[in-house]
Amino acid sequence: MSYDLVVLGGGPAGYLACERAAHEGMKVVLIEKRNVGGVCLNEGCIPSKTFLYSAKLKDGAAHGNKYGVKCKGIEIDHPAVVARKNKVVKTLTGGIASMLKGLKVEWVKAAGVIKGKGPDGYEVEADGKIYAGKRLLIATGSEAAMPPIDGLYEQFEKGFALTNREILDIEAVPKKLVVIGGGVIGLEMASYFNSAGSEVTVIEMLDQIGGPIDSDIAKLLKKNYEAKGITFKMGCKVTKIEAGAVVYEEAGKQQKAECDKTLVCIGRKANTQGIGLETIGVLTERGAVVTDERMKTNLPEVYAAGDVNGKSMLAHTAYREAEVAVNNMLGKKDIMKYNAIPGVIYTNPEVAGVGETEQSAKAKGLDVTIKKVPMQFAGRYVAENEGGNGFIKIIVDNKWNKLVGVHMITNYSSEIIWGADALVDKEMNIEAIKKIVFPHPTVSEIIREAIFQL
Amino acid sequence: MSYDLVVLGGGPAGYLACERAAHEGMKVVLIEKRNVGGVCLNEGCIPSKTFLYSAKLKDGAAHGNKYGVKCKGIEIDHPAVVARKNKVVKTLTGGIASMLKGLKVEWVKAAGVIKGKGPDGYEVEADGKIYAGKRLLIATGSEAAMPPIDGLYEQFEKGFALTNREILDIEAVPKKLVVIGGGVIGLEMASYFNSAGSEVTVIEMLDQIGGPIDSDIAKLLKKNYEAKGITFKMGCKVTKIEAGAVVYEEAGKQQKAECDKTLVCIGRKANTQGIGLETIGVLTERGAVVTDERMKTNLPEVYAAGDVNGKSMLAHTAYREAEVAVNNMLGKKDIMKYNAIPGVIYTNPEVAGVGETEQSAKAKGLDVTIKKVPMQFAGRYVAENEGGNGFIKIIVDNKWNKLVGVHMITNYSSEIIWGADALVDKEMNIEAIKKIVFPHPTVSEIIREAIFQL
Repeated sequence: MSYDLVVLGGGPAGYLACERAAHEGMKVVLIEKRNVGGVCLNEGCIPSKTFLYSAKLKDGAAHGNKYGVKCKGIEIDHPAVVARKNKVVKTLTGGIASMLKGLKVEWVKAAGVIKGKGPDGYEVEADGKIYAGKRLLIATGSEAAMPPIDGLYEQFEKGFALTNREILDIEAVPKKLVVIGGGVIGLEMASYFNSAGSEVTVIEMLDQIGGPIDSDIAKLLKKNYEAKGITFKMGCKVTKIEAGAVVYEEAGKQQKAECDKTLVCIGRKANTQGIGLETIGVLTERGAVVTDERMKTNLPEVYAAGDVNGKSMLAHTAYREAEVAVNNMLGKKDIMKYNAIPGVIYTNPEVAGVGETEQSAKAKGLDVTIKKVPMQFAGRYVAENEGGNGFIKIIVDNKWNKLVGVHMITNYSSEIIWGADALVDKEMNIEAIKKIVFPHPTVSEIIREAIFQL
Repeated sequence: MSYDLVVLGGGPAGYLACERAAHEGMKVVLIEKRNVGGVCLNEGCIPSKTFLYSAKLKDGAAHGNKYGVKCKGIEIDHPAVVARKNKVVKTLTGGIASMLKGLKVEWVKAAGVIKGKGPDGYEVEADGKIYAGKRLLIATGSEAAMPPIDGLYEQFEKGFALTNREILDIEAVPKKLVVIGGGVIGLEMASYFNSAGSEVTVIEMLDQIGGPIDSDIAKLLKKNYEAKGITFKMGCKVTKIEAGAVVYEEAGKQQKAECDKTLVCIGRKANTQGIGLETIGVLTERGAVVTDERMKTNLPEVYAAGDVNGKSMLAHTAYREAEVAVNNMLGKKDIMKYNAIPGVIYTNPEVAGVGETEQSAKAKGLDVTIKKVPMQFAGRYVAENEGGNGFIKIIVDNKWNKLVGVHMITNYSSEIIWGADALVDKEMNIEAIKKIVFPHPTVSEIIREAIFQL
């Protein structure tokens, strides 16, 4: 059968491309053997947020006495949290499936492999049939990287080592949990299981948690989590996973962290294997599909969006990349920009940022002014955070007097950051930002305050 | 003594004007007999937010079972909430006082009365001394309007009838509370006392709560609060307040609502009396000082900002008006715009909006497209709101294809709205908004979703 567009992979990039393309009248087929929604909806962003919301409610109740709210016997009923997560995932993935159905997108629930190019376009085989498309979108996503650690595969088979996928379905809260990798996924899971009662240790190879986030924020987040009882082993390399323990090197000495489960989250790897990229000659680099700013690969009418191109590995980047790809298929001018992609860590407190950090600006040699302001300058923060120690840091490009970075560690930052993102994306001048009326009292006002403190 | 600027009133407009003017090198005196921070910090925005945060924590714990969080014996310890409110107010007003001190703003803690114009400028008498300024900023704010209701003054003296000021300091939660006026203040206090265990009745003269907010949002908020146990008496006029009861007319029949306390919040009245406006001839209209878009009154170098000009009666409007006034004093071009002032109701769920509503756009005869989208389209909303019924409504001006209004009823809307505000203020085109990368999963993404559903 022949289509205007064949989409390989039904995660955020894939399903959104289907939606936008079908909406514009294209005949679209989606090839996805698992559920629609990808890692994001099924074993990533959304499930982890249901966990973390429960953790926040529990933390809120546990600290209620600071705010005149009494409660007793506060605990997380982990099986109920998992059951609710499953319900939320079902609701959301079901919503996407019916949206696609409503738009008459055909969903082939099977693995797809590119077979070549025929008279009707690029040919993908799935479930024994050939689906040919004038255009092809590769959106096969990513999976947890499995580093060459001694014993990892064995312990993974035995259910002692877990990835982001398995940990969301464990039935009981581990008494002791070791998280290998202090990136976003590791921190969010450490945060939930800490609130749920686990004794959590995070082992990170670098000397900073949170990946590329602002260094001061990374330090403060670590400090806050240490105060909540999480142990961090920084600059430590895991050398072995054995039954009941993770072995690692700390300052040249071998150490052992005993635990009931270990979560391996040291990074993500683009899914480029076994999908027949080589049959048509799609160019890859370091395991990811090479794309230009129009999301085009090296082949005409072959696009790639989402984690598979290895550029940003975030669901919201995938959405936008999918749109850019579809717009270009339709002949509309649209290019992908990566300078204003927000990043959020949904721990408690939350961390959110967009644009240049102090470190990235300095590394690029930009002429910038940096302003760090304690959250105490926002009245609502004081009203809602007894003893809170958050802050905002803004980065201003002196040449154009424009905002190029905003980074915050505070409650609500996940929901505040989009506006900062809009200002950075639209290259808004500081004088123009000063005239924006922020609602009072809000935590978001800290942005205005920081701008005026410049 | 003579100054570059005399500021009459130390609320949001007054203290911010002092800050900005002193920062620019002006010699400034502030005349304020009570605490700095005005109604906002002392008996308005901030105190009510400490109350409402406690209510949200309590509600969160009480609904924890829906999210796998168990708690028992959940209750609000009202005296502890009041004590904490006092601490927060002290912290914040103390912060402003020291900021002003640091900027060498002189604070005369006495009532000020304008006496005329002398050789050194406008003269204000306070505590028996004369303070003369080349410029004068009137920022005396507003107070609760006391309608001509039979028995109101008597019951106010007896402590049965309260305004926003007194209710924040009552020692016990009233068993039954009648709120007269279903505007923002009334709804927020109804919300807190409902969570704290009061049996609350709201009596509103109009057929809509929430003042000028979107009508569909007003209906839904009312429905949600009815489900929580608040009784609304719509289109009812209060005719008498007597010991232990509020008498009102419902469809021509006299009714009586018995209660332990009644909160009177039917509006605010600009403070223009007793401050000597007439001695220099400051023009007022319907009890408020008349100002132009530069915040100038009819007299040279006499400005008015904040509630006293009766334009918007919101703290954040006051901040911006104060800045506009100071900028104009400094000879900088700056005008006040009222088209992008956000409004927030911090109930649970929160309501936030900016710009035209469906009703205001229609009343103006604007050619607009209106899109209403259920919050279920935002994954995080589904993850955090079991059975949630919120929505967003966006208003797009068809002539320019620009966003002119955003209105939401959802958790976090208070912190999301500022970005919408920036887009409306900067008259952002819909196509430009489509390219903004919203973080996923967030509630804020609903804006993007609504834009794409247009």
